[in-house]
Amino acid sequence: MTFFEEYELGSTRKSHGRTVTEADIVLHAGQTGDFFPHHMDAEFARSLPGGERMAHGTLILSMSVGMLAGDINEQAMSYGYDRVRFIRPVHIGDTITSRSEIVGLREHPKQPELYGFADEQVEVVNQRGEVVAAFMHLYLVNRRPGSAR
Amino acid sequence: MTFFEEYELGSTRKSHGRTVTEADIVLHAGQTGDFFPHHMDAEFARSLPGGERMAHGTLILSMSVGMLAGDINEQAMSYGYDRVRFIRPVHIGDTITSRSEIVGLREHPKQPELYGFADEQVEVVNQRGEVVAAFMHLYLVNRRPGSAR
Amino acid sequence: MTFFEEYELGSTRKSHGRTVTEADIVLHAGQTGDFFPHHMDAEFARSLPGGERMAHGTLILSMSVGMLAGDINEQAMSYGYDRVRFIRPVHIGDTITSRSEIVGLREHPKQPELYGFADEQVEVVNQRGEVVAAFMHLYLVNRRPGSAR
Amino acid sequence: MTFFEEYELGSTRKSHGRTVTEADIVLHAGQTGDFFPHHMDAEFARSLPGGERMAHGTLILSMSVGMLAGDINEQAMSYGYDRVRFIRPVHIGDTITSRSEIVGLREHPKQPELYGFADEQVEVVNQRGEVVAAFMHLYLVNRRPGSAR
Amino acid sequence: MTFFEEYELGSTRKSHGRTVTEADIVLHAGQTGDFFPHHMDAEFARSLPGGERMAHGTLILSMSVGMLAGDINEQAMSYGYDRVRFIRPVHIGDTITSRSEIVGLREHPKQPELYGFADEQVEVVNQRGEVVAAFMHLYLVNRRPGSAR
Amino acid sequence: MTFFEEYELGSTRKSHGRTVTEADIVLHAGQTGDFFPHHMDAEFARSLPGGERMAHGTLILSMSVGMLAGDINEQAMSYGYDRVRFIRPVHIGDTITSRSEIVGLREHPKQPELYGFADEQVEVVNQRGEVVAAFMHLYLVNRRPGSAR
Repeated sequence: MTFFEEYELGSTRKSHGRTVTEADIVLHAGQTGDFFPHHMDAEFARSLPGGERMAHGTLILSMSVGMLAGDINEQAMSYGYDRVRFIRPVHIGDTITSRSEIVGLREHPKQPELYGFADEQVEVVNQRGEVVAAFMHLYLVNRRPGSAR
Repeated sequence: MTFFEEYELGSTRKSHGRTVTEADIVLHAGQTGDFFPHHMDAEFARSLPGGERMAHGTLILSMSVGMLAGDINEQAMSYGYDRVRFIRPVHIGDTITSRSEIVGLREHPKQPELYGFADEQVEVVNQRGEVVAAFMHLYLVNRRPGSAR
Repeated sequence: MTFFEEYELGSTRKSHGRTVTEADIVLHAGQTGDFFPHHMDAEFARSLPGGERMAHGTLILSMSVGMLAGDINEQAMSYGYDRVRFIRPVHIGDTITSRSEIVGLREHPKQPELYGFADEQVEVVNQRGEVVAAFMHLYLVNRRPGSAR
Repeated sequence: MTFFEEYELGSTRKSHGRTVTEADIVLHAGQTGDFFPHHMDAEFARSLPGGERMAHGTLILSMSVGMLAGDINEQAMSYGYDRVRFIRPVHIGDTITSRSEIVGLREHPKQPELYGFADEQVEVVNQRGEVVAAFMHLYLVNRRPGSAR
Repeated sequence: MTFFEEYELGSTRKSHGRTVTEADIVLHAGQTGDFFPHHMDAEFARSLPGGERMAHGTLILSMSVGMLAGDINEQAMSYGYDRVRFIRPVHIGDTITSRSEIVGLREHPKQPELYGFADEQVEVVNQRGEVVAAFMHLYLVNRRPGSAR
Repeated sequence: MTFFEEYELGSTRKSHGRTVTEADIVLHAGQTGDFFPHHMDAEFARSLPGGERMAHGTLILSMSVGMLAGDINEQAMSYGYDRVRFIRPVHIGDTITSRSEIVGLREHPKQPELYGFADEQVEVVNQRGEVVAAFMHLYLVNRRPGSAR
């Protein structure tokens, strides 16, 4: 993937897997300042469904985006996310994978000769094949110089 | 804020400020695996609008959520985010603040006696008062035991 | 709590809990350069009372101070600590909580119209209710402008 | 230094220097959850004496202890700290050094045949030779097996 | 690149660029325990050629290897490195890029039907085009099942 | 050890032990961008010899170098490494120790009055006494001023 012209509707990607560790949660709490006991307090977490500390939603979203960022595309930037949903808790030791599909390609309304929008629907799946999170990733992508009519 | 019954439509919150540092970007790249040159390569970044490395969108979202998580509410969990938008780039040294308003309170469609949804519209503002990001934070909140009819 | 005038003798605070993780110890060793085998070497640690790696004293003190820093008071700064004592070892997986009481309020000897000292006695308790550490936290607090005679 | 018998009253140590970086402050905030704007918000910090973000007291204490922990002594453990005082602010870019003197050697009151206490007075000095912090580090040190009468 | 059969002599790779930050050096010191003043003490570093803190050699090697690990090949593992040389100092703010060439493909002497060795010569270049480090990366690569005679 | 003149052929060093943790691997992946599933994906790792996630080679090398850097010698700098070999996998929870011997002392070919080279052969050993890695560490060491003829 490089310029907007190269994106194809229906094309899919699948990341490698990554195990969510206690260290990831500790680092994410540290980065964000979110020390909610749901994430940080093993005693409190016994009272939650699942009975264990859960990863932060923003950690799962951030990791999922990063897992698909191995293919570095210098022509694309994150414009936003739509309908981010945390569907099942992710616990320490779960292994997650991201898979995605390009479901929309749109001209930029104001600068169609410079940019396009690509909409990538992403699902995060755990080691049991359960979808734990889903979201739409909106990219602002440069058009190939000289490519627009 | 504690149980769903205590949430009030129109109530607002404002975080303390936090300066986005080069270390935050390095740590976020490390946590997510997103080493896009927009964030990591000062030479490449000269070609971007603004001419400097930009914070990851997921970093700004995660920090913003965390900045409002100082008031720990054990009864609430993140359900998701809607319409996350990165409006202006955040550069190293910018100081951001989050402000929010409860704009929706909804019964849980299937388990109204147990949970409610609170919708908090959040804006992230930089030191010049410019909105750099905005999103809706959806919380799943426990109802006060015995409070529902 | 804001200005010195708002502090009350005998008022108490209690933090949320936090589980001390292996990642916390690794990060603290990295931050400080203290790689004593008591903290870092599981084989060596078998020879210690308890038989396991122990958290650094400075980690427990730092975490305890931080756990009570969720209520951000822009008018207060740490002036020092008295009688910091590490009473029982904290092992990986222990969950600690901080509780405190304001036990002294003193005028600043040289600038009583500008500052006061608040003395907060803090105890750190593990998941079995045992006190693992204790210390006095001394705060230098701004007086409310115009409040002193 | 190894067993209690080897400690000498009046012996001194001096660490290498270490520059306190913005990254150190960000990591310490993350480790402790202490995001006070004095440490994290460059805009707020303009209103402070010095006009810049200051290192956390617990960071300076922890770094200072760590700087003297390069000589690993497997026979010693931190028992506590007395009269920890933060005398001058430490700003980003300051370089600190720790120097210390053994000022007390005491038998353990209950188990004199097993342990002794060593009191090490530590001063933390910046690149201008100013003392920025001081504290007494109390060590619990094993006696040489068979050394006590 | 996947199985040993797919590696081609003379094929080259080039990474994206990455700016070496003060945070990277602080994190590497923390990970390794190497707090040599060449890396950590800005005052001491004035006496060095260049007059500034230098990145650790192991940091430059580790980053360089990582910069070329974006193409994840599940069939390859690092076997070792030969002739790692640090040719010029890397200072905070330098931007490095890795470029490499496959210069050797060898059968595994004992298990030629299972593995091969690929030798990748790597150069690390700074923003001025100067080679700052060089090394040979030796990979142990799985052969395609059933591919050997 | 200080100036080149103080180095002695055949002199040996032995580090303290350090347990390789999951947090170390997570931090090293973050520092380098190397998220190969051999290190990060517990599910994938079941297919590897040993069946568990393995530490990165560059992590073991970096830790080993750091473990011997506790004796800070301001007169020495790393010049390079020869024949770095990863002999056995290191898994989470293994405890490693470094031991070394000075096996070569050579005059600097061009500036023999200013520098010498010291060659230190290092072995990394796990808790079962198995050698997991080995390498030659080449130091560039300052000569004592005025010491050369």
